[in-house]
Amino acid sequence: MPKKTTIGVMGPGDGATERDRANAYQLGQLIASQGWVLLTGGRNVGVMEAASQGAKVAGGLTLGILGDRDSRSLSAAVDIAIFTDLGNARNNLNVLSSDVVIACGMGLGTASEVALALKNGKPVVLLTDNRESQSFFTQFGAKHLAIADTPDLAIQLTRTLLSSPSRKP
Amino acid sequence: MPKKTTIGVMGPGDGATERDRANAYQLGQLIASQGWVLLTGGRNVGVMEAASQGAKVAGGLTLGILGDRDSRSLSAAVDIAIFTDLGNARNNLNVLSSDVVIACGMGLGTASEVALALKNGKPVVLLTDNRESQSFFTQFGAKHLAIADTPDLAIQLTRTLLSSPSRKP
Amino acid sequence: MPKKTTIGVMGPGDGATERDRANAYQLGQLIASQGWVLLTGGRNVGVMEAASQGAKVAGGLTLGILGDRDSRSLSAAVDIAIFTDLGNARNNLNVLSSDVVIACGMGLGTASEVALALKNGKPVVLLTDNRESQSFFTQFGAKHLAIADTPDLAIQLTRTLLSSPSRKP
Amino acid sequence: MPKKTTIGVMGPGDGATERDRANAYQLGQLIASQGWVLLTGGRNVGVMEAASQGAKVAGGLTLGILGDRDSRSLSAAVDIAIFTDLGNARNNLNVLSSDVVIACGMGLGTASEVALALKNGKPVVLLTDNRESQSFFTQFGAKHLAIADTPDLAIQLTRTLLSSPSRKP
Repeated sequence: MPKKTTIGVMGPGDGATERDRANAYQLGQLIASQGWVLLTGGRNVGVMEAASQGAKVAGGLTLGILGDRDSRSLSAAVDIAIFTDLGNARNNLNVLSSDVVIACGMGLGTASEVALALKNGKPVVLLTDNRESQSFFTQFGAKHLAIADTPDLAIQLTRTLLSSPSRKP
Repeated sequence: MPKKTTIGVMGPGDGATERDRANAYQLGQLIASQGWVLLTGGRNVGVMEAASQGAKVAGGLTLGILGDRDSRSLSAAVDIAIFTDLGNARNNLNVLSSDVVIACGMGLGTASEVALALKNGKPVVLLTDNRESQSFFTQFGAKHLAIADTPDLAIQLTRTLLSSPSRKP
Repeated sequence: MPKKTTIGVMGPGDGATERDRANAYQLGQLIASQGWVLLTGGRNVGVMEAASQGAKVAGGLTLGILGDRDSRSLSAAVDIAIFTDLGNARNNLNVLSSDVVIACGMGLGTASEVALALKNGKPVVLLTDNRESQSFFTQFGAKHLAIADTPDLAIQLTRTLLSSPSRKP
Repeated sequence: MPKKTTIGVMGPGDGATERDRANAYQLGQLIASQGWVLLTGGRNVGVMEAASQGAKVAGGLTLGILGDRDSRSLSAAVDIAIFTDLGNARNNLNVLSSDVVIACGMGLGTASEVALALKNGKPVVLLTDNRESQSFFTQFGAKHLAIADTPDLAIQLTRTLLSSPSRKP
């Protein structure tokens, strides 16, 4: 049996907006409904927390890859926690371990994850109306990059990217 | 709900003996029977492969934290894979993410994991009859270290270590 | 004696333009002339190679932090090599180990480094005429971010950022 | 010009004995006298601090690869600091970046470094009279492992290991 399909939802922690959190919660629900595993940064704030809660409400399995060495900042909605003690170096693990990365909102950590995902050839869906983000990443990653303005469209694009034959193993 | 209890089984890959693999398979079964998540290095050889297969046969959930960046060496018995691209630096993640570490057999990678586990205050069960290993690690880690000669005893000691009040969060 | 001042020059490898390489070579010379240590990604291509060569011509000390585990891709102009075997996760080390980061040109790896630098509160000089890059990063990092269009100006801005009292230890 | 020869001295931090520190200081002096770069874990305690001080007294160049993200624990005798923010995962970087690893004293962190060095095919000199350490590591690493009881002998063995034709690039 192949490993479970894993979808990463990356986005701001403390800097998340209300809209980012609402979108993340809905993404979590939709990901769980597809039978996919949700992967986040695992902390109990912002997009990570909201996405994990959404997935649990819909009966999904939640995975958190934390930069920390213990469970002090762990979301209670994470089933399986990886404690890396790597700080921000763990961002590269998050994208390598996701079959598709959905960026929900934008911040500096999220920007590093989108950049690393595209560099590694991982498909990315940007769920943001930030024009600067769209312009910046489009110039590098057109082939593996899709832009969405709702969680529903983000999931639809994710399904398309998952079935693309050019996807890396 | 707290995160799922996760037990790491670490041991040689290509250098595993027949006995190491048989013990690992049985450990995987027993860990799954307890309702615990099995964590290994995730590759398709040696102790990692055998433990993951044992856990799947018993209906468990298997997690693999690989040093690789993709699924080329991934065990087919791993449900959830973390691709770290960290080489041997990932050994520290394996022990930080396990509630208890069981070393099944001994080799240089395993030795580094036992040392890092004890340094991080993680409980370790040594399932090995190698006297040099027992003498070496006992001098440093008496408090968090237990020694077993069968998988059954290793699991019994793991249960005791899990319920110890001195356990870190 | 405090540690030596270390300036990171980050930029594209295989994707570097002729202008990126010319700028990097000049940056290397100027950094060495100031008595600063040059830090790069250490490989024998693009901005890393050109900056290291420029620094050596000017009698400087060159440090390379590679994602690799051995010297196969090492620039011959690197005096001291750190082999991390971390792949792109090493990008975070490059910015944490630089007192100021100069981004010379832009690509996905460089974008991840600029984002991580600003997230860590490290001052960044963007030496690029790419408008999308300037707009994208300005929205997050105004306080620690400066923009230059020549190596000379980049070094002048670096000197100012080094003497800023808000600089982290 | 090839990169500078780099010798790692690894040993206990807070747990170092007086003898460990005296040996480390002497190792630092001898390494600097050979014109080699000294690599340590970079902190201001134990073997790291003593070795770095010894090397500076003898006019050497000192490199520190820290698990920390900033200079709070940095030895004042370190010229060039790499801040990894990787915690104990940085131990693998220390051994990959050393041409030869000298273990001065023994502890859990040091044990992980010796194990990782031998796993990576790096030559190791054990400067310890701890019999359990000698027995434990000899069973795995005979080919790349030498045992010394004085700093002078450790340096002599290092010189031999450096000139061995089987040495990896």
